[in-house]
Amino acid sequence: MKVKMTSLMVALAVSAVSVAAWASTPRNEPITPIEPYVSDNPAMVQLGKKLFFEPRLSMSGIISCNTCHNLSRGGTDNLVTSIGHGWAAGPVNAPTVLNSSLAIAQFWDGRAADLQEQAAGPIEADIEMAMPHTLALDVLNSIPGYQDEFEQVFGSREITLDMVTAAIAEFEETLVTPNSRFDQWLLGDDGAITEYELAGYQLFKDSGCTACHNGAAAGGTSFQRMGIVQAYESTSPVEGRYSITGDDADRFSFKVPTLRNVEYTYPYFHDGQAKTLEEATDIMGQIQLGRHYTEEEIDKIVAFMKTLTGDMPQLTLPMLPPSANETPRPDPFR
Amino acid sequence: MKVKMTSLMVALAVSAVSVAAWASTPRNEPITPIEPYVSDNPAMVQLGKKLFFEPRLSMSGIISCNTCHNLSRGGTDNLVTSIGHGWAAGPVNAPTVLNSSLAIAQFWDGRAADLQEQAAGPIEADIEMAMPHTLALDVLNSIPGYQDEFEQVFGSREITLDMVTAAIAEFEETLVTPNSRFDQWLLGDDGAITEYELAGYQLFKDSGCTACHNGAAAGGTSFQRMGIVQAYESTSPVEGRYSITGDDADRFSFKVPTLRNVEYTYPYFHDGQAKTLEEATDIMGQIQLGRHYTEEEIDKIVAFMKTLTGDMPQLTLPMLPPSANETPRPDPFR
Repeated sequence: MKVKMTSLMVALAVSAVSVAAWASTPRNEPITPIEPYVSDNPAMVQLGKKLFFEPRLSMSGIISCNTCHNLSRGGTDNLVTSIGHGWAAGPVNAPTVLNSSLAIAQFWDGRAADLQEQAAGPIEADIEMAMPHTLALDVLNSIPGYQDEFEQVFGSREITLDMVTAAIAEFEETLVTPNSRFDQWLLGDDGAITEYELAGYQLFKDSGCTACHNGAAAGGTSFQRMGIVQAYESTSPVEGRYSITGDDADRFSFKVPTLRNVEYTYPYFHDGQAKTLEEATDIMGQIQLGRHYTEEEIDKIVAFMKTLTGDMPQLTLPMLPPSANETPRPDPFR
Repeated sequence: MKVKMTSLMVALAVSAVSVAAWASTPRNEPITPIEPYVSDNPAMVQLGKKLFFEPRLSMSGIISCNTCHNLSRGGTDNLVTSIGHGWAAGPVNAPTVLNSSLAIAQFWDGRAADLQEQAAGPIEADIEMAMPHTLALDVLNSIPGYQDEFEQVFGSREITLDMVTAAIAEFEETLVTPNSRFDQWLLGDDGAITEYELAGYQLFKDSGCTACHNGAAAGGTSFQRMGIVQAYESTSPVEGRYSITGDDADRFSFKVPTLRNVEYTYPYFHDGQAKTLEEATDIMGQIQLGRHYTEEEIDKIVAFMKTLTGDMPQLTLPMLPPSANETPRPDPFR
């Protein structure tokens, strides 16, 4: 849940962001600045952080949300596709959790409406955390430290899946990255980005990239077909939104990924096949816009995209409460 | 490296520990209080922290030191034995990294003389991080953020293994847990532990446990044979210190584990076969001391051991610098 920020709250919570800047109207651009998020329930955020780092939500006892959405690494694992239970390779590239609250839906194919719905999925997915929800709840319900904390946050010592995912989602809501140099520019600071970077943005906008990469996350506002002008060649078997809607028009349609902190979230695309920002830009130009960017144009656009790196969340590593004697133990080889 | 603390430094760095308490002489007991550690090289500590959380030191790109020595969980993974590259099961239980600087040597069999020597091992071990040191250095040397930081700390942009392990070790030196209730009692606060817990300590001491579990870490000061009075039955093939010295007298001899924060470091023993503190205490009594503790005696000793939980290190999650385009990428299935 979000509360309207007062100047004081912003000053206290996000001192790096100029309050004065927020008082001004941003430039009229298709990409909009990220607002700092101030939760009205800090206790739920703290609980959600613990659960985000909690490997006991996995059957093996070593995989947590943070394994694939590593908050030391831009909220992703920088693998082509993730590694899950039993060393299984996942089908798609792990999207960053940073600014994921700004997206219209969750997962590449949008099969979860929001962060809370999303959080339940990987816990029980066989090739991710492989943990039946009932067992995950048995584990949490056996740990006195969690019973106390859920009671404090939800008023109940009987922990349910809805509470678990609500807390994780509330923590994830805080994972926005305001104050990028591009946002400083959007908010009126002409010197925040260089002329070269600005020229990159102009080219990015003029060639049509902002048709999809727009809004506060510079993406995440729509589903788009991968390969509008020219087919995208991939060995990946996933078919995107088609697998949800069954509508032929949705085949190879994916949620447009955010470009925020994109220098941290390599490799790129749903199949993780673009190793560098330059390669990703080149391919996007060709298959989405029918345009062959020159090397210099690509360099310019990449320079712009690197101005989208914002302030990463400053997090204290959570301390997880110890299991009790009766807590079910992990079973990595199950 | 450690510097002599001034009162001011202690007050600044470890405000939770009473300076006044440190001015007094601890009680004359076989277990001694843990001193806070203040590094004279905070920049090296910060670099070491990044490397400790750095999954790019593994071939898969997802295993870091923190995977098995999880600082959210008492510095261990709470598995019977750890899971490494390719989902391999390790041969022994991961010892906690907390207070490991206080031990006479590293690893259960003491095969590394100190933390720096230890740090190199798991990086290249096939069933742990599976990363040849040369490749690990190629990765680090290709990352501008690391080049800058190593230059700042070591005065060189050419990163060597010695620098990497020195920084990790310096970070690990900071991972001590002072200010446990037992230490408060040692330093003169009679009310810091209950009479029941004190009775547990008396029994622990009088039955001979402190012959091995002594010093600041309540362990780590000697190697001891597992099964002095009665053989320890284990399916584990490891033979302890014998595999280093080749001396028959060292067969099944292991470094005595620390009891600091022991309520967090389950399961117990080199093979991780004791699930609970009660079970571990019962077995130790029988095989090391020839003593069958009653249930009440075990309960008392366990109550004492839980007073050994100290202040966990408060750590800000490090932000790892992004790879460059030319950085070698992880290869989880190699």
